[in-house]
Amino acid sequence: MKLWGGRFTQATHKEVDAFNASIPFDYRMYAEDIEGSVAHSKMLHKQGFFTDAELKAVVTELASLKKEIEAGNIDWKIEYEDIHMHIEALLTEKLGATAKKIHTARSRNDQVALDFKLYAKKQAVAAKEQLINLVLLLAEIAQEHTETILPGFTHLQHAQPITLAHHLMAYVEMFARDIERMESTLERMNLSPLGAGALATTTLDIDPLFTAKELGFSGVMRNSLDAVSDRDYLLELMNHNALIMMHLSRFSEELIIWNSTEFGYIRFEDAFATGSSMMPQKKNPDLPELIRGKTGRVYGSLVSLLTTMKALPLAYNKDMQEDKEAFFNSSDTVSQCLSIFTFLIAGGILFNKEKMFASAKKGYLNATDLADYLVEHDVPFRDAHHIVGELVALAIEKGVSLEELALSDYQSIHADIDSSVYGFLALEACVKRRNQPGGPAPNRVLDHINFIKNQY
Amino acid sequence: MKLWGGRFTQATHKEVDAFNASIPFDYRMYAEDIEGSVAHSKMLHKQGFFTDAELKAVVTELASLKKEIEAGNIDWKIEYEDIHMHIEALLTEKLGATAKKIHTARSRNDQVALDFKLYAKKQAVAAKEQLINLVLLLAEIAQEHTETILPGFTHLQHAQPITLAHHLMAYVEMFARDIERMESTLERMNLSPLGAGALATTTLDIDPLFTAKELGFSGVMRNSLDAVSDRDYLLELMNHNALIMMHLSRFSEELIIWNSTEFGYIRFEDAFATGSSMMPQKKNPDLPELIRGKTGRVYGSLVSLLTTMKALPLAYNKDMQEDKEAFFNSSDTVSQCLSIFTFLIAGGILFNKEKMFASAKKGYLNATDLADYLVEHDVPFRDAHHIVGELVALAIEKGVSLEELALSDYQSIHADIDSSVYGFLALEACVKRRNQPGGPAPNRVLDHINFIKNQY
Amino acid sequence: MKLWGGRFTQATHKEVDAFNASIPFDYRMYAEDIEGSVAHSKMLHKQGFFTDAELKAVVTELASLKKEIEAGNIDWKIEYEDIHMHIEALLTEKLGATAKKIHTARSRNDQVALDFKLYAKKQAVAAKEQLINLVLLLAEIAQEHTETILPGFTHLQHAQPITLAHHLMAYVEMFARDIERMESTLERMNLSPLGAGALATTTLDIDPLFTAKELGFSGVMRNSLDAVSDRDYLLELMNHNALIMMHLSRFSEELIIWNSTEFGYIRFEDAFATGSSMMPQKKNPDLPELIRGKTGRVYGSLVSLLTTMKALPLAYNKDMQEDKEAFFNSSDTVSQCLSIFTFLIAGGILFNKEKMFASAKKGYLNATDLADYLVEHDVPFRDAHHIVGELVALAIEKGVSLEELALSDYQSIHADIDSSVYGFLALEACVKRRNQPGGPAPNRVLDHINFIKNQY
Amino acid sequence: MKLWGGRFTQATHKEVDAFNASIPFDYRMYAEDIEGSVAHSKMLHKQGFFTDAELKAVVTELASLKKEIEAGNIDWKIEYEDIHMHIEALLTEKLGATAKKIHTARSRNDQVALDFKLYAKKQAVAAKEQLINLVLLLAEIAQEHTETILPGFTHLQHAQPITLAHHLMAYVEMFARDIERMESTLERMNLSPLGAGALATTTLDIDPLFTAKELGFSGVMRNSLDAVSDRDYLLELMNHNALIMMHLSRFSEELIIWNSTEFGYIRFEDAFATGSSMMPQKKNPDLPELIRGKTGRVYGSLVSLLTTMKALPLAYNKDMQEDKEAFFNSSDTVSQCLSIFTFLIAGGILFNKEKMFASAKKGYLNATDLADYLVEHDVPFRDAHHIVGELVALAIEKGVSLEELALSDYQSIHADIDSSVYGFLALEACVKRRNQPGGPAPNRVLDHINFIKNQY
Repeated sequence: MKLWGGRFTQATHKEVDAFNASIPFDYRMYAEDIEGSVAHSKMLHKQGFFTDAELKAVVTELASLKKEIEAGNIDWKIEYEDIHMHIEALLTEKLGATAKKIHTARSRNDQVALDFKLYAKKQAVAAKEQLINLVLLLAEIAQEHTETILPGFTHLQHAQPITLAHHLMAYVEMFARDIERMESTLERMNLSPLGAGALATTTLDIDPLFTAKELGFSGVMRNSLDAVSDRDYLLELMNHNALIMMHLSRFSEELIIWNSTEFGYIRFEDAFATGSSMMPQKKNPDLPELIRGKTGRVYGSLVSLLTTMKALPLAYNKDMQEDKEAFFNSSDTVSQCLSIFTFLIAGGILFNKEKMFASAKKGYLNATDLADYLVEHDVPFRDAHHIVGELVALAIEKGVSLEELALSDYQSIHADIDSSVYGFLALEACVKRRNQPGGPAPNRVLDHINFIKNQY
Repeated sequence: MKLWGGRFTQATHKEVDAFNASIPFDYRMYAEDIEGSVAHSKMLHKQGFFTDAELKAVVTELASLKKEIEAGNIDWKIEYEDIHMHIEALLTEKLGATAKKIHTARSRNDQVALDFKLYAKKQAVAAKEQLINLVLLLAEIAQEHTETILPGFTHLQHAQPITLAHHLMAYVEMFARDIERMESTLERMNLSPLGAGALATTTLDIDPLFTAKELGFSGVMRNSLDAVSDRDYLLELMNHNALIMMHLSRFSEELIIWNSTEFGYIRFEDAFATGSSMMPQKKNPDLPELIRGKTGRVYGSLVSLLTTMKALPLAYNKDMQEDKEAFFNSSDTVSQCLSIFTFLIAGGILFNKEKMFASAKKGYLNATDLADYLVEHDVPFRDAHHIVGELVALAIEKGVSLEELALSDYQSIHADIDSSVYGFLALEACVKRRNQPGGPAPNRVLDHINFIKNQY
Repeated sequence: MKLWGGRFTQATHKEVDAFNASIPFDYRMYAEDIEGSVAHSKMLHKQGFFTDAELKAVVTELASLKKEIEAGNIDWKIEYEDIHMHIEALLTEKLGATAKKIHTARSRNDQVALDFKLYAKKQAVAAKEQLINLVLLLAEIAQEHTETILPGFTHLQHAQPITLAHHLMAYVEMFARDIERMESTLERMNLSPLGAGALATTTLDIDPLFTAKELGFSGVMRNSLDAVSDRDYLLELMNHNALIMMHLSRFSEELIIWNSTEFGYIRFEDAFATGSSMMPQKKNPDLPELIRGKTGRVYGSLVSLLTTMKALPLAYNKDMQEDKEAFFNSSDTVSQCLSIFTFLIAGGILFNKEKMFASAKKGYLNATDLADYLVEHDVPFRDAHHIVGELVALAIEKGVSLEELALSDYQSIHADIDSSVYGFLALEACVKRRNQPGGPAPNRVLDHINFIKNQY
Repeated sequence: MKLWGGRFTQATHKEVDAFNASIPFDYRMYAEDIEGSVAHSKMLHKQGFFTDAELKAVVTELASLKKEIEAGNIDWKIEYEDIHMHIEALLTEKLGATAKKIHTARSRNDQVALDFKLYAKKQAVAAKEQLINLVLLLAEIAQEHTETILPGFTHLQHAQPITLAHHLMAYVEMFARDIERMESTLERMNLSPLGAGALATTTLDIDPLFTAKELGFSGVMRNSLDAVSDRDYLLELMNHNALIMMHLSRFSEELIIWNSTEFGYIRFEDAFATGSSMMPQKKNPDLPELIRGKTGRVYGSLVSLLTTMKALPLAYNKDMQEDKEAFFNSSDTVSQCLSIFTFLIAGGILFNKEKMFASAKKGYLNATDLADYLVEHDVPFRDAHHIVGELVALAIEKGVSLEELALSDYQSIHADIDSSVYGFLALEACVKRRNQPGGPAPNRVLDHINFIKNQY
């Protein structure tokens, strides 16, 4: 007979139990469930529902249950439905009548809301820490490459010369925003739902602020209907996760392209790559590909929960049970991807500076510099742009780079250009002159690196 | 050392193995992998790559491996990466050199494409059969309710009188389209990818048509690059699954609303409902709620794979490994939901005809009939609509139904109405007169029921 | 000839222009573009690129262009591609050479990043203000209904008695979180991208902090590659929009159900509903239905931009142009829905308190109170739950409510129940006793209302 | 006063009209609406509801209205709500009482279902024709490149040698499946909803099969509730559109990568590319980038409508009005992208065969051939794979290609290799030997090209 079965005259069908049960996945929240029950019991004791001895028995038994679970001694049973009923049932087996009091002034609705919030908070904190590690690692590597020149791309076309450090620090900014978003949600979600009961609190004399403080919350949710039906914080975290994966997918795409035979900017260490079952020469960049592919999973999870929550009337509905696996899928994936990506960056990539520099010499990366040169010689920018366009066309026709054009070629198109132009066009000089906030000049990037190191 | 490790000088990191491995989920396809290897071996034998003895050894050993797997005797190992390499490794343990020939003229790329197609076909066939069961069950129940009148709704407002049979048969049509879609994709996907190799077939003399026929395909894919990188059939099936869930979510929403205290059109048997941990009186319609909620999961899986496949260059990329779990998630969910929903419909619902009929008497369901009555008395429809609008307003004001209005009331608004109107307005007559193709008249619905029964 | 056409030897095909052009939708950002160009020109002047006269001419002409645009005098032309080139071209027509200097040290990449950020900030601020209006309106209405009792639902089943005020304040909390999210993103996005140039700043001596301050930003983005390729803030806002719509869809679903003949908790004023072309009696709740339906649009827009941004290499790619219409679709929809929903709530709904109260008397809403009554008589909660379950079963069998059971019935199941139970079970008392933080007791809800009124 | 306003005592608020109205976008279906009304009128005439003169008047006036609409003489008015009421209103202005009969036995619900189905069919047919054009064009280009060798890629790593023709024909297969899907849905959706009325047909004596045939349908929908609430065909088409965009995004990704300086496999004609506002040398592949980006829009539209349809009770709900813009967005985008992509392929791309071939010489593309060589010398494949892996490692160490290794090198690793190996390793031979169904050998690809040309 189910713990809630008083008014029922038939036992639930096994098939129905199997479909409804969440224990196959929500067992994960055993620690949070126990943590919540301990706090709830302390509050019940403080308010006179538990004697000293009862509290002691409950707290001791919950601690011992936790150990048993962690030792793998508990066999989860479908008929107990979920981790909440399961732990109450296990407690009742041990303690009898005392355990029957633990659900006083509580419903599974506020209990699951509590447990999942505690769980999600831990995940968000863990993701934040992983992001900080990655950010610091990237800053570290960037520091070695403030003068490693490679082409800056737009439209996957050579655009302007930048450095590897500058490039890596762009991702640092993305991940830094990911960190900020996690922090922002952690703050916003920090109100306890415990005490909301099924949907309308309770008639018994409880102290929800006590349990909130006990569990590390800053306060209590302001409406009990909302407390049991709010899943906003999950959707926020899952959107943050989607953005993390979007950033990782961009980085991964670049690693994959850079690792092509044609680009050759990087190689992967053998221990970080895999071979082919058929083609003996293959060494494949599986890690960034799989990370890029897993973006789909994290986007899809967000869509799943958004869809599930659409148009649900207040307050709790069983549909909401779908929040667990969707969030786990999103959160586990991000955790794995951040971990393996950091591992890859830390030791799996060999940068080929020579290839990068050789590549930077192609594609007229310094054309904007030439336009700026003309602007400094008082040519309006739009005219300068046009003049350089013609010079580039001339260089393409001659099959040379801008710095290989003769001075007479320059002057045939614009008379004011003199031999000072050649010094202006060296890639190293082009990078150094981009000495603006956020720019690639080595000292600017170094400032940024130091800012990040101080920040985290 | 990996089977593909000839050119590698380092072993893969354990973390990299763990991240890359698909064996934790693709072990599911062991039967298809073995089926494919048997067919491939037969072809290799036919083409002279295997002796009779070698073929016999391989086929026998694969059959025995299958049994061992099904007996749960195989411990899947992360370092073997996937089900394909795993089975080759197990075979090699047993057979030595002979097993080393089994991958002749084959790549994991065409092997995985084959295995997954075989697997997906089985899933599609199974879904089709579940849908047929559901359709026949609904037709059966409908047959008992061709005269059970309830309000037809639009905008969740009472619209026109229909019958429960008519209502149920609307869902039959939806599920019948789901069946057709499965059939259509099953036909379109029925070309074998085996022989495509890694991406460009092989230089060895093979016979892909032989393996195709052996495995139940109607032919061979027409381009090998496409063969290893095509996931269209999965996306088709996952979209079909999304539509199935959309249909189930609509049906579930109605069951939930009909089961409310206010509607009371249905009740659930105790064995199909659950209670509340806190509220002793509760009996909750968990099954339709959870099905409705799982729509999110199936939509999300579709988005996952669409996202993963976006902008992947040819041919195979590791990203595509994400197809498995996305499809499993979609396909398993649909299978469970169809199963439990059919089970619920078959034995878990009590229809309350009295409540339905009582409800049908409210809300002026026969107003359109009254307009049609006027049309038959030569009033242009748009005027008839307006006149009835005024009569409804009058009836609301008087707090009566249309059939309770006095003849003088009718005639005060339109002189041509006579006492024949009362017979016209009886709900049973209203339903019977809607004797059009697809309409609610009992004989029409019966025709439809018979059509369906003959069809499947 | 295009403004950028120096190196091109062919004119762009018309079809290509038509496909590439963003002017058909980005003309919306004319005000932000002009605002940005004015700030940029002031900076160029400060840094010596513009004379006093040139600056004056540019600023004056931009102001006059803005007026012309707002008067509808400008005919947007596809061949000018986008609002940025279009305004530069119009300026050049008027000012000649001076206008050719305005793009000095600027690229469309940082210009579009700037314009769209300015635009998105305005949208976020506007949404926030709409949300505040709605929150205050709901609090106002709630204040009139702190004693309007209706059933609290879980699983769309009667659960426990609450008040309309309590119910409305649940939505206030959701919208309050929506406000917080907008504020949080507005803060995080408040760094200027101007000065980032195409991707790597510029070699010219500019002052990006000056333009940032001039335009109301708190600082400058820390990496120029990131500055031109960051779309995080849009995805954040679009996710916030998705949550707003999720909340509105839940509220709308409830209004639709409450407006059914069976529930009858509310009616819509005629001026807020629509009729049917065929059925004269119909009055349909189009507004909440359409709002609920538009949830799809806002979810879909989020998916669109997430998809577009997946796996894009640094820095700007043309794909990103798709951000505009996706964001407009999301942002316009939310703005319309919040506006019409507030309008509906403010004047379009008639609450039927009698129906609500009558409904609350059904469904054994006070069963948990009875369990709490037993807990207060020292029955462990789990036993109390079971006892009440039996009493509910008895009451159902007798066809009565709990308060209609005879004392002897009560005592036949549990001896300790005495006549005090009847006072305990009155709905008004049940609500009043739920006097916990976030609970439905009138004074608690009033506290919440006052908290909200002080907050905004 | 609204045409449906009989029972209403207040006029609809303007804001409500503006929010509800679909005329700003559904005016597009004017031709289908008129086509449907003509067929409906003919049926009404046949069944005796219209005199000969009335029918003639209606048909003539509808034809003349169509001309006026196409001449741009009609000013769509928000207060007429949608194209259906608008055309009825315009007709009524002209014809008076006769027009009031046109809505006999019809509702907007079946009317909109009809109009949109007619519209969607046209879109699907048009998409199919565009796909056929593209397929034939690709086959044409392929025919010129059956011997143009380039590297076949997996994981964006050089895998095996293929030809440009083989590569292009992979896309032909994808688009051919897109065509099949369109055809399949066109067949499945070919049942007329007209006659379903609001949801339950009509009491009047109509002939829905007549109108169905008149409008080119093969039959009538089998359930009227389903007829007015079915949006499956739109979701099918939108999923087909998503797959088309997925295919285009893959092709576009490749064009973008191939157009990079590092790959250099293709260049775009100036008339198909664009420049940069800041960087004079840039020539950007805007077209494939924008197509790749628009994948998001088409995916998002699918999600929109799936979300909207989730959990809607039967039959019509206003939410469904959202189907229009979602479908238009999907369908218009696909139409534009197919059009511009075909235009680009037809005249905008220059293939650089030399670069392709030079690239194919790198990366040990013929390693699998060497393994096959060993298999033909009776080495089990898995051993052959390992031996070649070692030879590749040796070649990398020596900085040479496989064909540049000395025979002694070969024999140091495997004694059976003799000088015949060199002829075996030439790229042309490698391609020619892959003479399997679907393989890259020129004659095989030519067979495929001819198959396609015969097919369409």
